[in-house]
Amino acid sequence: MGRWQPDARGRLARAALELYVERGFDRTSVAEIAERAGLTERTFFRHYADKREVLFAGSSALQEVLAHAVAEAPGSATPLDAVAVALEGAAAVLEERQEHARQRQSVIDANTELQERELIKLASLSGTLAEALRERGVDEASAGLAAEVGIAVFKFAFRRWVDRTEEKELAQFVREALAGLRAVTADA
Amino acid sequence: MGRWQPDARGRLARAALELYVERGFDRTSVAEIAERAGLTERTFFRHYADKREVLFAGSSALQEVLAHAVAEAPGSATPLDAVAVALEGAAAVLEERQEHARQRQSVIDANTELQERELIKLASLSGTLAEALRERGVDEASAGLAAEVGIAVFKFAFRRWVDRTEEKELAQFVREALAGLRAVTADA
Repeated sequence: MGRWQPDARGRLARAALELYVERGFDRTSVAEIAERAGLTERTFFRHYADKREVLFAGSSALQEVLAHAVAEAPGSATPLDAVAVALEGAAAVLEERQEHARQRQSVIDANTELQERELIKLASLSGTLAEALRERGVDEASAGLAAEVGIAVFKFAFRRWVDRTEEKELAQFVREALAGLRAVTADA
Repeated sequence: MGRWQPDARGRLARAALELYVERGFDRTSVAEIAERAGLTERTFFRHYADKREVLFAGSSALQEVLAHAVAEAPGSATPLDAVAVALEGAAAVLEERQEHARQRQSVIDANTELQERELIKLASLSGTLAEALRERGVDEASAGLAAEVGIAVFKFAFRRWVDRTEEKELAQFVREALAGLRAVTADA
């Protein structure tokens, strides 16, 4: 294998996820991931800090999508409208990698340390949303609340999508969860 | 010191929190906690599995409060009404230990590992709420959504209370956050 390795990053990510699903996260080594991808450990560490990071490397892309969508939402959008637009944008990104998202979730569900890391990631997405709302001029309290609730809705919708009891797009689950939120708050 | 140690558990918890605030969580040992409390390490380990558990031991009490409040809510209560009652119950418990809650939060805020653990705790509180709602006959989806959003609201209210920009009770912050949720969803 030459020095030029097309899509080394993607190959490593796919090899890692395959192994995590087959053997479990704890029982997979970086050496095995590199071998499965037909690459060296050194190449692995050029792309990822450790074997955990493979699972969370997409999170900064998601943050950008959320921040950008909130910034671009129409001036007339309420805070929750802006959050809804952002969540649909994030859903579209994940939708393209449905099988990856589901396998990744099954690996995380099997490992407490990864669950903790995933929750931290969700908390940071909430921080991103809140910051983007404040930059639209939304007051501190409404921004924080809309962001926190938005991420709760997304978490709920994502779980339903991953559990795949119905064949629907993630964006559809997000819309239903937002409608459910309105119903649940309206009659309370 | 005799074999009978009045309130050993409470003394250990107070000593631990003092040391975590003074020196940081990482730089405090179980030996130092025991010494500060005037007890032995062995006594420490009779009460807590490790120094991290001191900070999270209250979480099962909170789960009971939530589950009980949801179960006891009037039959006419909507899912979110029942959640609101439960969150006020949890607020009342924490209110009694305001200074402890604030010091504990400052220790957690300074440590990523503890933040992850705290988020797992909040996720399990959401699971408790959802389960209690299902036992009231609330459908799966509404139960999950009301619980997830309820915990998001509580997290938001708790943060405002801990940051103490205004002198208000936690229960008041919870009520305001629930009202804010309704406002934010109504005009969206």
